[in-house]
Amino acid sequence: MEHFVSIHLDRSSDKPLYIQVYDGIVQLIKERKLSPGEKLPPIRKLASMLNVNSVTIVNAYRLLERDGFAISRVGSGTYVRPVGDIIEETSEIANRMSQGNEALLKVPFNFSGTSISPEYFPVKTFKDALNRVLDRDGGYAFAYSESQGYLPLRESLRKFLFREYAIEAPVDYIHVVSGAQQGIDIISKALLDFGDVVYVESPTYPGAIDAFKSRGARIVEIPFLQDGPDMEDLLAKLRSRPPKLFYTMPNFQNPTGRSYSEQKKKELLALSQKYDFLIIEDDHMNDLYYTERPVPLKTLDTADRVFYIKSFSKFFMPGLRLGFILAPEHFSKKIAEVKYFSDITSSGLTQRALDVMLQDGSFNEHAERMRGLFRERWNLMIRALNKHMPQEVSWTEPQGGLFFWVTLPSGCYSTNLYSKAIKKGILLTPGDFFYPDRRPSPGFRLSIAQIPPEKLEEGLKLLSQAIDELLDEFRMDPLRGDIYRPLF
Amino acid sequence: MEHFVSIHLDRSSDKPLYIQVYDGIVQLIKERKLSPGEKLPPIRKLASMLNVNSVTIVNAYRLLERDGFAISRVGSGTYVRPVGDIIEETSEIANRMSQGNEALLKVPFNFSGTSISPEYFPVKTFKDALNRVLDRDGGYAFAYSESQGYLPLRESLRKFLFREYAIEAPVDYIHVVSGAQQGIDIISKALLDFGDVVYVESPTYPGAIDAFKSRGARIVEIPFLQDGPDMEDLLAKLRSRPPKLFYTMPNFQNPTGRSYSEQKKKELLALSQKYDFLIIEDDHMNDLYYTERPVPLKTLDTADRVFYIKSFSKFFMPGLRLGFILAPEHFSKKIAEVKYFSDITSSGLTQRALDVMLQDGSFNEHAERMRGLFRERWNLMIRALNKHMPQEVSWTEPQGGLFFWVTLPSGCYSTNLYSKAIKKGILLTPGDFFYPDRRPSPGFRLSIAQIPPEKLEEGLKLLSQAIDELLDEFRMDPLRGDIYRPLF
Repeated sequence: MEHFVSIHLDRSSDKPLYIQVYDGIVQLIKERKLSPGEKLPPIRKLASMLNVNSVTIVNAYRLLERDGFAISRVGSGTYVRPVGDIIEETSEIANRMSQGNEALLKVPFNFSGTSISPEYFPVKTFKDALNRVLDRDGGYAFAYSESQGYLPLRESLRKFLFREYAIEAPVDYIHVVSGAQQGIDIISKALLDFGDVVYVESPTYPGAIDAFKSRGARIVEIPFLQDGPDMEDLLAKLRSRPPKLFYTMPNFQNPTGRSYSEQKKKELLALSQKYDFLIIEDDHMNDLYYTERPVPLKTLDTADRVFYIKSFSKFFMPGLRLGFILAPEHFSKKIAEVKYFSDITSSGLTQRALDVMLQDGSFNEHAERMRGLFRERWNLMIRALNKHMPQEVSWTEPQGGLFFWVTLPSGCYSTNLYSKAIKKGILLTPGDFFYPDRRPSPGFRLSIAQIPPEKLEEGLKLLSQAIDELLDEFRMDPLRGDIYRPLF
Repeated sequence: MEHFVSIHLDRSSDKPLYIQVYDGIVQLIKERKLSPGEKLPPIRKLASMLNVNSVTIVNAYRLLERDGFAISRVGSGTYVRPVGDIIEETSEIANRMSQGNEALLKVPFNFSGTSISPEYFPVKTFKDALNRVLDRDGGYAFAYSESQGYLPLRESLRKFLFREYAIEAPVDYIHVVSGAQQGIDIISKALLDFGDVVYVESPTYPGAIDAFKSRGARIVEIPFLQDGPDMEDLLAKLRSRPPKLFYTMPNFQNPTGRSYSEQKKKELLALSQKYDFLIIEDDHMNDLYYTERPVPLKTLDTADRVFYIKSFSKFFMPGLRLGFILAPEHFSKKIAEVKYFSDITSSGLTQRALDVMLQDGSFNEHAERMRGLFRERWNLMIRALNKHMPQEVSWTEPQGGLFFWVTLPSGCYSTNLYSKAIKKGILLTPGDFFYPDRRPSPGFRLSIAQIPPEKLEEGLKLLSQAIDELLDEFRMDPLRGDIYRPLF
């Protein structure tokens, strides 16, 4: 109760009192002075404490509930939303935003999909590879492969890592997994205990946050600036409580598209030694560079502190569900054991097919083709953004990958834009999803994975109209614009 | 320290003092009076406390270490083995015993393999199904499917459940996963928090124990008698502390091959309501019945308390990595969310191929063929066991599945038999692996999955010779026979 007295109300402000109460409570939640699951004071009690009308508190609580900060239980009161609920909701929304959702697939301008369109998948090549494997290995193609992965595939991956990324690694430390998400989940299970601290970039990929939270980890955000983490902020946090793990996408990050400078890559590695933490490098888009191939953190990792994860899903064939972890020597055994009790092993058949495609060069041919295709789309996107976006809006210009991060003026929320955009047939991903607490954000992600090039410019033109509408509203009444209207 | 005074030493016994000290400490560990990671007393201190020579304590500690109950750290002392280490080792051994191990594959009489031999896999049929899917769906066969599973496959599974098992379930509660192990892991993540209690049958499948332990669960064992759980023991434990989850294989259990009577199935379901716990039914072998199709617990589950897991791996094609969870309505949403952050979705391509095979009847044809084949092998096995096994040995006669559980006279350990058997080219699975604390066991598992019928009788003849050797040693010196010699 004592925390609530600290809520400061400015009765001379134009801001309605109920919004001031709402802001005060959100602040208490963010500062962790209120814990998930904690009961908020009864309405009349808080009203008399703050010397306001009961209706003011009712409205503030309603707003908290609507915005996902609280839940009310009939006959019992209002509570700070428990962590479990938040995990649930993030996943569900990620789920709804994913390719599986038929309704969203029909939206005319899809700037939300994160994997390349099915028509670009190398179906014929893969079919040939599958049939070659089945003719060659017969039933053995279906037998359990080693839990750590089919050895010839790990050997092909070892060569690939050396040739393409200058990473030297023995096959013993390469672990085949069912995509990057499983890689993150397995490392979490191997390393994290309840209460352990994980640093993540802010914003970051929500699937990783869910995996960390499911181990009871405490998530700490490090702002992602133009050229990598905010080093001042990072240092301050390291001095107070270093993490067990730092989760990063140093190249073409999801959702911002930004990359670390080489300097910051080196600094992060040095800090991991000084403050004794481990790093997960989620290298989700390395092959989709448009200027030059980026250098993974792992290439520079002389102290062996980086778990390197690469997926073949987004860029290659999502339905394959294959990726790998290159683990530090010291943790390699543990990773193999966790993989075993997670799902024994990944599909031996698809492992064998991928191996064939890595060996005969057809994977590289596909990569080359995709780079050409998306480089063109990326150029189109940069031109169209420059041509159509309103003045007040800023965006990143990534050097690879599929994502652009667009930022509205401070005070405008991207979920409010989402609702306007969807009416014009445009699907974007609001920034909220990429923050652990799902807080309202002026940023949003535009993906070029699934928007056909011939529709790209028209889509951005319509989007700029939606932004203009939002900005007009905001200009007319900045206080109204400041009210966050959640999506679902 | 105070616990160690309770170690009772009988100086008039023939049993060496160091083994008595060893037994006393093992007892303290099992009663959880000593915690994992706890330091054992310094050698001289314990020696003077128990009034024995230091060498006695040194020998006892060495034995504890050799048997996996303790670890010694140079310059620091001896510690009760931490839980994490135990998980590690169980998985590693399971791994070594699995099909991936080339060296073990070459053993002439393999009574250890748990999935049917690759030569029985329906390769041609599956290849046709794959090619049909690729020709029909093109790149869309590789697109992400819904996290919960490809809808037409879930519809086929719904029909299959109704037709074969008389289970009525809407597709909404069916969740496609990458094999039974992932099913167990996902349910663990969805339901278990640190300190939650899980009841398991004793002995049981070690992969399940690992998944529960990784959530910090406390494992409680319920002895598996001839016709199901020991109800008296179960009731006593329920009255003292009911579990959150009860993990069971009610039909053709792994490793014992035993099944619940219908009476005990009903009793367990009634108890789950009375004591408010949930049940995981791992129905790993239902299709491999030799007399009549067994009734799953789920068929009788009117109160919707059972998570039903079925895998297509062991019986069909292990490398497929497909199975499903049928979840209680109330938990279905949660399961979908955990699946999402575990690995997004299972391979869409193999889901589509399995769907084709369920729809065109080729899955059922394969099942029928396998039943015929293994029924024959099962008959051979029963005859050979009766003919060759020494008098002192007993075994189960399962009504389906691949496993026989053989029990040596009390005081004989199956790991000691393992070492003798492997010298004769026979691979069996010692019982230790199927107990949470890996304690020495007189029981062991024989599997008929991979032993060719023409080698079966010869294998059992050789095995009975190995048992005779062990029994001879034991008869000559029961105290020596009582010393457990671990495998690895």
